[in-house]
Amino acid sequence: MTLTAVIMAGGKGERFWPKSRTNLPKQFLNISGNKSMIQQTISRLEKLIPLVQIFIVTNELYAELIHIQVPDLPIDNIIIEPIGRNTAPCVGLASIIIEEKYPDSTMIVLPSDHIIENEDGFVHILKTAIEVSAEGNNLVTLGIEPTYAETGYGYIESSKIVRELNRLEVHKVQKFVEKPDLRTAESYVEQGNYYWNSGIFVWRNKVIQNYIKLLMPEMHQLLEEMKLSFSMENRNTIIKKLFPLMPDQSIDYGIMEKVDNIYVIPCLLGWDDVGSWTALERINTKDDNGNVIIGNTLNVDTKGCIIESNGKLIATLGIEDLIIVDTEDVTLICSKDKAQEVKTLLKELKVQNLEKYL
Amino acid sequence: MTLTAVIMAGGKGERFWPKSRTNLPKQFLNISGNKSMIQQTISRLEKLIPLVQIFIVTNELYAELIHIQVPDLPIDNIIIEPIGRNTAPCVGLASIIIEEKYPDSTMIVLPSDHIIENEDGFVHILKTAIEVSAEGNNLVTLGIEPTYAETGYGYIESSKIVRELNRLEVHKVQKFVEKPDLRTAESYVEQGNYYWNSGIFVWRNKVIQNYIKLLMPEMHQLLEEMKLSFSMENRNTIIKKLFPLMPDQSIDYGIMEKVDNIYVIPCLLGWDDVGSWTALERINTKDDNGNVIIGNTLNVDTKGCIIESNGKLIATLGIEDLIIVDTEDVTLICSKDKAQEVKTLLKELKVQNLEKYL
Repeated sequence: MTLTAVIMAGGKGERFWPKSRTNLPKQFLNISGNKSMIQQTISRLEKLIPLVQIFIVTNELYAELIHIQVPDLPIDNIIIEPIGRNTAPCVGLASIIIEEKYPDSTMIVLPSDHIIENEDGFVHILKTAIEVSAEGNNLVTLGIEPTYAETGYGYIESSKIVRELNRLEVHKVQKFVEKPDLRTAESYVEQGNYYWNSGIFVWRNKVIQNYIKLLMPEMHQLLEEMKLSFSMENRNTIIKKLFPLMPDQSIDYGIMEKVDNIYVIPCLLGWDDVGSWTALERINTKDDNGNVIIGNTLNVDTKGCIIESNGKLIATLGIEDLIIVDTEDVTLICSKDKAQEVKTLLKELKVQNLEKYL
Repeated sequence: MTLTAVIMAGGKGERFWPKSRTNLPKQFLNISGNKSMIQQTISRLEKLIPLVQIFIVTNELYAELIHIQVPDLPIDNIIIEPIGRNTAPCVGLASIIIEEKYPDSTMIVLPSDHIIENEDGFVHILKTAIEVSAEGNNLVTLGIEPTYAETGYGYIESSKIVRELNRLEVHKVQKFVEKPDLRTAESYVEQGNYYWNSGIFVWRNKVIQNYIKLLMPEMHQLLEEMKLSFSMENRNTIIKKLFPLMPDQSIDYGIMEKVDNIYVIPCLLGWDDVGSWTALERINTKDDNGNVIIGNTLNVDTKGCIIESNGKLIATLGIEDLIIVDTEDVTLICSKDKAQEVKTLLKELKVQNLEKYL
């Protein structure tokens, strides 16, 4: 059995605009530490998996960036989606490409742009997840123990029946649930058997392929067609032709929600999806006035703000609860409670033919 | 009788930071229109006075800027104060320098950094003020009819006895009063015989010199000493030596408040002292959301803001009542109600050894 990883790196990170841009989205930025998020994701995985067994699914725009940021990654390990689809086609495509090289493999599927502080804990949990995925037709997911009633995440409801393995709890998944409203999120946190859906999955390639065949037969058909026509030279041509026919479906919706034997391993790990600018408040230390300040600033009578300078002096006076992000050609000033709506600015840029700022 | 003007142009315009800087203060900036404020001040005066009879009092730092912005002004008409003093020494020094060239002159004294929209009205009022100043020992000042209860200006209380001249009212001044609190300002506006102190004065040079001799004898002494030692070559040397001994007093306090025959001519004229960033709300048209927007911006859910871009895209979302000013090396984000306190940032810059941003 070969251990492999599939990093999903096609996201646009729009809520991190204006730092995240069409040609340099969030996963390629240093949000914390001195490596980009995708470099950090790879470093974490390399504690368990050699780089040659790590695959990155992305789109044409970012292939070159990945090559620059992860120069030792074999070019063939960069899988290019010709068109943006959801996670199910991404997983399916990766699974047949990996199968070709490693006929019997276990796959870790994970996003490219999350933070995990506790790397040793992460490795320990992955090892345990691999153990669980080795049994029967199990699928395994990592569930983040909610520290507050977040409404921006999907939740995993777990059965209360628990098995202990390597000092970790392994729960059977009861249900995947969509992003809740605040009251529902609060009840989830209170009930204690709900976890944030981390988007990190572990399964044997054969098992996920079986589920695809069973539950997404049309996609399975397309994948089979791809497999038959693949050669080293024409891989991208075949993908370009057939991938656009794939359904725009998430792996959660297409498979996970319809399968019985899924297990969740709850963890904390200092995980953060860094979903919007307010994430900086969770991953950075605040000053005495509750501000997160990065770079060259001068702040008087300034409270609860997130301020990132790109070199220019950001001088603030008498302000509260604002996000201020200065980049080469754009400065964003946004109230903190609109952090999730930064995308509306991107829409407006398109309306006003200001695509150069996207 | 020669008509002369003295423009006071030594101010720092600190409340207009970061656009106004130590080496380029407000009077040299284009705040409205396509000329700097001092250029606009001179244009207005030139409708009445030839440039050769216009004098500018400033300090060493700004002499070169004046020469660049007003290249046709004779170098000798730039009077350099070696040290920042209040308006009384400024008027005194200008008066003896002008007297040397124009022994019998009427002086218009005015700030360099105010806006006056109605230029023809301004000329008409100046002509009338000159007429009034020709009588006896009269001093004349322009009083701006208050349009609201501003607490940032000094007021002039006028006697209710009115004389009409050239379709204008001429009131005797009752009293100069300091910046009032809001309630007092409101009562001034209600009473109707209070005007904003514009800082624009008209008098005959001989008359003001007599008042200086009478009411500021020590300053008079110094001015006499200067007059005696002046030659074309050593003017600046003499000023450097004696000017620092001058009292740090305003002409209002030193003379105006102590004299009986002062007259105020009330006017509107679209005057604005452009005292802080909120002035932009008075001199610009607001958009439908009450914003004043200058330059490259993208604004969604943005209300009551003053935003000036220097080229960079200023993108705003979900904000209200903020001042945002972007310059080459500084971006200011300030709540509108702290516009008067921008100076505290400048103090803080000094504390933090960040003088390069001053």
